[in-house]
Order: sequence, then structure tokens, then C-alpha cells
Amino acid sequence: MPYVNIKVTREGGPDGTGPSANQKAQLIIGVTDLLHNVLGKNPATTFVVINEVPLEDWGVGGLPVQEHRKQTL
Amino acid sequence: MPYVNIKVTREGGPDGTGPSANQKAQLIIGVTDLLHNVLGKNPATTFVVINEVPLEDWGVGGLPVQEHRKQTL
Amino acid sequence: MPYVNIKVTREGGPDGTGPSANQKAQLIIGVTDLLHNVLGKNPATTFVVINEVPLEDWGVGGLPVQEHRKQTL
Amino acid sequence: MPYVNIKVTREGGPDGTGPSANQKAQLIIGVTDLLHNVLGKNPATTFVVINEVPLEDWGVGGLPVQEHRKQTL
Amino acid sequence: MPYVNIKVTREGGPDGTGPSANQKAQLIIGVTDLLHNVLGKNPATTFVVINEVPLEDWGVGGLPVQEHRKQTL
Amino acid sequence: MPYVNIKVTREGGPDGTGPSANQKAQLIIGVTDLLHNVLGKNPATTFVVINEVPLEDWGVGGLPVQEHRKQTL
Repeated sequence: MPYVNIKVTREGGPDGTGPSANQKAQLIIGVTDLLHNVLGKNPATTFVVINEVPLEDWGVGGLPVQEHRKQTL
Repeated sequence: MPYVNIKVTREGGPDGTGPSANQKAQLIIGVTDLLHNVLGKNPATTFVVINEVPLEDWGVGGLPVQEHRKQTL
Repeated sequence: MPYVNIKVTREGGPDGTGPSANQKAQLIIGVTDLLHNVLGKNPATTFVVINEVPLEDWGVGGLPVQEHRKQTL
Repeated sequence: MPYVNIKVTREGGPDGTGPSANQKAQLIIGVTDLLHNVLGKNPATTFVVINEVPLEDWGVGGLPVQEHRKQTL
Repeated sequence: MPYVNIKVTREGGPDGTGPSANQKAQLIIGVTDLLHNVLGKNPATTFVVINEVPLEDWGVGGLPVQEHRKQTL
Repeated sequence: MPYVNIKVTREGGPDGTGPSANQKAQLIIGVTDLLHNVLGKNPATTFVVINEVPLEDWGVGGLPVQEHRKQTL
């Protein structure tokens, strides 16, 4: 009866605006299989929720992601 | 001092695009009353946050919700 | 296919150490019914996860809960 | 290796539609510094995720935020 | 820069009290690889947090997990 | 009406078993002041919830934290 929440920055994907529906489907089946294989969890009761987070809303190293990347080039 | 987070798929409601403001208000009062009645929690310090999740971002049974529904018809 | 997370402070209940199993069961049925009644959600795919949070880990008004209560008496 | 999630209502900011990118950057550096100063956490592995929540999706006192404010004026 | 939260019921594992450290390590590498393979995410900045939830704190079908299992046998 | 969740690994602090109550109080006042100063948020309705996560439940770089540290020495 697992619940998995995956948060990624909204970027990349086929048109640069975030993961495609197909990529999200791959994450869903991938993590569901993982929980089945490692812990025997039933896929029928495994929930996966994906959140895309705008770049300005994600910080690391004390900076918004895009500023952080400029400084670590 | 409870904090409640309710995640639902973005669908249904009066125009098919998700719960209406009125339905959300019903969820807010309903869960606030529940915590008051069962645990004596003070409504003034009960927070409720509702998130609508796009269908392609929610997986169950190893599939995005819409694919899952087609297969379980 | 809702997912509900309820966070409460670890206190109260029959022995002062937090909600009893019975009180938690009342929260689970109450919020599941609420989502069914307001949004037509299927109880079979409604998940509810309850977290008890130690008092020193919950802050309000800039203070841990217990300090806050002393000051607002 | 902290992870911090900050949820605020989507309002205020320079044009009334929520915090500006600059304000979010101030939150990110502020909370990263706080964790470094209090617990010695490494800023390089401190993640901060900010979520703006629409007003109708946030409840307090059993009411959506805007209704609650009218009643407590 | 993904953040993944995996919630499972506290049960199973080698001694029935929840996943072992080794099983958790398999979840961590598995989901990190998945995000690398599907979205090209850098493992060095992929965080995974696992939460074990006591059975009485997890509800489905309007019942705590253990009651739900008895009824669906 | 902000809600802030701070997750840190359970380590450090005065006896090596995690942040002390006093350090948590510093996090609570610090983040509450930050939200007041940057966004004008009312401390009275600012909630802060701290979670300590066991080391084996936190992964980075595809490894549990402790393994990761050994490899990056």
C-alpha cells in the first residue's frame, strides 16, 4: 500500500517544459515495479504522485536552481 | 493544531476541470469538524491544504490513472 | 483516488500519549466518507495516512507548541 | 542534507499574485543559512522547495482563507 | 535535483517489523537509477526519504489497513 | 498562513542522537521570523513541523547517507 511522491524541477522533456506524459508513465511503472520487486508490494495499491516544481521555487546551495548552476559551472 | 493535506486528481466538479470552490469549502469544514469531534482539536488552528493533481501525474497499478481506468473497465 | 495526510501533535487520547487506535479509525472513516460524499471518490482507492508529531517538533507563533501555550494563557 | 518545504498562499508580492522570484530567493538563502547556523548543515546539500497554494485551496478555522478573513475582521 | 518520498507500512522485512536496511538501500539505488535513466537526473543531487508508517496510521477503504485486510479476504 | 516542514537526518545535537529541543526552537523562531520579514506573514498563523529521519531512511547519490559519506571521503 505504498505512496510515492516524486518531485522534479519543471524543465527538460521533449520541449524543455518538463517531463512528457510518456516519461511520467515510465517513472510510474518503474517505481511501482521496484516496490513490488524489493518489498513484494501489490501494484494495485501503489500510488505514485509526480510534482513538477518551477525552477524559481527550488533552491539548493542557498540559491534558486538556475543561479546555483551559473555559480557551479 | 492539526495540518491536513488532501490530494485529489484534477477532474470532476461542475465543469469537469476539478472540484469547485464550493466543494473545496465543504472538504475544509468537513475535515475541520471531524478533527474537532474526534480529537477535540481547535478549528481556529486547524489548517487544510488541498492539491489538485493532473491526471498524467497520478499513477496506480503501475499506470497513469487514465490508462489504469481503461484496463480495469 | 485521493490521498489524505493528517498531522496532529502527539498528545491527548485515552492515556495522554496521542490518539488511540479507535480515534484514528474514526478519522480514517470520517475523511473517507467526506471525500465520497462531496466529490464521489471511491473509498476503495482512498488512502489516509496519519502522523503524530512530538510536541517539541511542532511550532506556532515562533515557539514550540508547549511554550506557545504558556504564553497565550 | 536537509529538505525544507515552504507552503504559502498565492497572494501578495509586487503585483498581488504571489511572492516574487526575489522574495523566494530570500527565503531560500534565509532557511539555508538558518540550518547551517543552528545545526551545521552543509548548504550544498540543503534543498528548499516552495509551493504557492491558491487561496481557495487553503482552509483555516473551517473556512477557505478569504472567507475566514471576512469573519475575523 | 529530484526529491522522492516513499511511504510504506511498517511490516514485512526479515523480522516482520519493516523493511531491512538492505531493502531500503535497494529502494534508494533503484529510484535514483530510474530518475537518471528516464529523465537524466544527476544521482549526486537526488534525495530519497523513506517513511515507515505504523499499520494503525494507514487507512484504505475507510478502515485501518489491518481491518481492511480482514474484510477483503 | 505559512506551513513549513523541515526534514533533517537524525544525528548530531548535544548527544549525537539528533537536534536538541533548544536547537529545534531556534529553527522554529528562525523560519517564522524569515517569513515575517520577507513576506509579512503573521507569526501567529505560521506552522513549523520538524521531522527527524533515521540515517538508513535517507538516500543521496544512490546510497544511504552513511554509505554515501564513506565513498565521498
